Amino acid sequence: MKQQAGGVTAANGFFAASAMAGIKYENRKDMALVYSETPCVLGAAFTTNRVKAAPVQRDIEILHTAQPVHAVVLNTGTANACTGILGAQNNEKMATLLAEALHLAPMQVLTASTGVIGAQLPMEAVERGIAALASGLGSDAAAAHAAAEAIMTTDTYPKEMAVSFALAGKTVTVGGMSKGSGMIHPNMATMLSVITTDAVISRAMLQKAVSAAICDSFHMISVDRDTSTNDSVFCLANGLAGNDEIAEAGEAYDAFYAALLTVMKALAKQMAADGEGASKLLEVRVVGAAEKAQAVTLAKSVISSNLVKAAVYGCDANWGRIFCAMGYSGADFDPEQVDVYLACGEGELPELTVRQLQLAKDGVAATYDEEVAGKLLSAKTVRFTIALNCGTETATAWGCDLTHKYVDINADYRS
Amino acid sequence: MKQQAGGVTAANGFFAASAMAGIKYENRKDMALVYSETPCVLGAAFTTNRVKAAPVQRDIEILHTAQPVHAVVLNTGTANACTGILGAQNNEKMATLLAEALHLAPMQVLTASTGVIGAQLPMEAVERGIAALASGLGSDAAAAHAAAEAIMTTDTYPKEMAVSFALAGKTVTVGGMSKGSGMIHPNMATMLSVITTDAVISRAMLQKAVSAAICDSFHMISVDRDTSTNDSVFCLANGLAGNDEIAEAGEAYDAFYAALLTVMKALAKQMAADGEGASKLLEVRVVGAAEKAQAVTLAKSVISSNLVKAAVYGCDANWGRIFCAMGYSGADFDPEQVDVYLACGEGELPELTVRQLQLAKDGVAATYDEEVAGKLLSAKTVRFTIALNCGTETATAWGCDLTHKYVDINADYRS
Repeated sequence: MKQQAGGVTAANGFFAASAMAGIKYENRKDMALVYSETPCVLGAAFTTNRVKAAPVQRDIEILHTAQPVHAVVLNTGTANACTGILGAQNNEKMATLLAEALHLAPMQVLTASTGVIGAQLPMEAVERGIAALASGLGSDAAAAHAAAEAIMTTDTYPKEMAVSFALAGKTVTVGGMSKGSGMIHPNMATMLSVITTDAVISRAMLQKAVSAAICDSFHMISVDRDTSTNDSVFCLANGLAGNDEIAEAGEAYDAFYAALLTVMKALAKQMAADGEGASKLLEVRVVGAAEKAQAVTLAKSVISSNLVKAAVYGCDANWGRIFCAMGYSGADFDPEQVDVYLACGEGELPELTVRQLQLAKDGVAATYDEEVAGKLLSAKTVRFTIALNCGTETATAWGCDLTHKYVDINADYRS
Repeated sequence: MKQQAGGVTAANGFFAASAMAGIKYENRKDMALVYSETPCVLGAAFTTNRVKAAPVQRDIEILHTAQPVHAVVLNTGTANACTGILGAQNNEKMATLLAEALHLAPMQVLTASTGVIGAQLPMEAVERGIAALASGLGSDAAAAHAAAEAIMTTDTYPKEMAVSFALAGKTVTVGGMSKGSGMIHPNMATMLSVITTDAVISRAMLQKAVSAAICDSFHMISVDRDTSTNDSVFCLANGLAGNDEIAEAGEAYDAFYAALLTVMKALAKQMAADGEGASKLLEVRVVGAAEKAQAVTLAKSVISSNLVKAAVYGCDANWGRIFCAMGYSGADFDPEQVDVYLACGEGELPELTVRQLQLAKDGVAATYDEEVAGKLLSAKTVRFTIALNCGTETATAWGCDLTHKYVDINADYRS
């Protein structure tokens, strides 16, 4: 597997565009389009929130038709959630306008919105934006990058990743983009992600791969425990790589799955690191669990704790809060068997000779140097490893610290 | 029912003491004692956290013996959680020292600790503190107040409440104290609470009253979704009011329950309003629910949302975040039937002619004046009423806003 430049246009036959429609702010890109002339098989996953935005409701219908799709059109500024019948009509119109511009059927166009809940889409701006998108398609890395920028809300940088791998003489590419960065919680984040691939793959196997890869990537990140109304992950496969169709489990599926998981994990970590107000990426690895579900629950509970996140921000090795968060997670474990370790990201803080510290042993304080702990906690990537010592299962979750800036951003998001 | 001065000593026969033991800080009260010469029936409730502090483990044993108790000794500075065998020994010693000083059996003494998880109790300081407590007992309001101050951690003011009511010619009093104010989440808070009463009541009915009243008070508050390792609520009844024993359901039980609930609710609201870094009390009332459990789940989900709390801090009427938090709560409801109202606390902002604003109607934006909404949100008490319009059940939850100060406090709690 090889990392590639470009994100959502890295796979053959995919085009991207971005536009300044003026939906909420002037002079910033706020609409994006991903398009394939060749029809695409669709795999997708959506928010579990009972309140679903208008585009999510329509996209779920499209997924259920099992028909090929060609395009995803996205906007920021308003989420088109809690917008009633007018919101549904505006969303349908957004799809129809794009379909007309690209000579598609409306049901071949997926939509996604992100931004303030409860505000209606300004349709004049959307119309202008769609005209610009349709005439601005490009297949280079710059077009992909601009599209990744256009879907940002409180994100501070665009998220992209692409890889390719060989499959019986053919090269298959998987690439994608996503946006965070608040209302991020399993399952899933306030996130939108569009992933494209030129693999030839059946609808069933693509959906299987998307559903499985999400569990180890987007479902394992948390910024603030708020699961949004708009979360959507789309994976479009246009088949231009020309490989034999992946229609069942086996080596070819495994290779595709590994590539998809790599892209999703990379996007998920970028989203966690760029969580609202984040100053560092927090990684919580649970090892030695008896069951996978136990490891997942514990890792998610620790990554979601405001108190753990605030302690990481303050470079305070307050490991008791990790035990506390494990204890209320609902998962069963024996606190008196638990060891906790602290490390920084690979290659970070080269001046430190101690690369990992044991903070707790058998459920009580280990002997460690608080000053070294404080230094490790000052890294851009902070890793906690929690050893349950009762099995071999593992899980890793990603999040960020809780900072003053998170409060700044969310106390004043609408204005 | 009449509100009384004094907290934990308002009921007949209860004494309180406080001491500066120097457990973590010099020159601040950090130990407290509540004592009754007459033996007390005990009702209690403890944290649901899988990781339970040493005192909690011992108190649960005492509760299970069904034997009368005489005293609760409490310390701040360290939580005596994740402290292993030494922690259990130190906790037992704390009870034994107090028992010796007051000529009690150790099993007649309950213990409670709060503070940093993972640190051992400094036993020399505890010994000094206990000597001071045993010789400093008082039954006046000042002694109760000083004890309420001694159990504070990041609290900014002590929490007390007492009421009395007439029962067939006798006066029964219920009074209590508690401390917050971080790691506060249903069920329960990082809270300690000692409630005393002179009612004559059977052990079964006392426990029934405590368990029920907690559901509508301490279980309905949230500061940060972290459930601590040390939460304990003790209710001691010494029987000095001389009423006929409350041994079954009926009018006498109802009168006692109403008094207990009043005390617990008042303490719960004080704790929510004094949540770490809080600048205002947030009250979320769900009305018109089909089932009580649905109302409770929705109210707790909204009160716990970082995004709702940050919007309240920023005086931003971002009602979409309320729908979002309801949507991921797991409770079933029809978003398109939901109305949301905003109001300030009674008597606050007398200059405003509009006392309540409708923010959302039938699941979409209502027409309202953003400026008035901002003013209502600037009050010391902010109330959201969420009408589900599908039944008659209700639930109310209390919390606070998420502020810069919360981050300050928790980024640097240990030092």
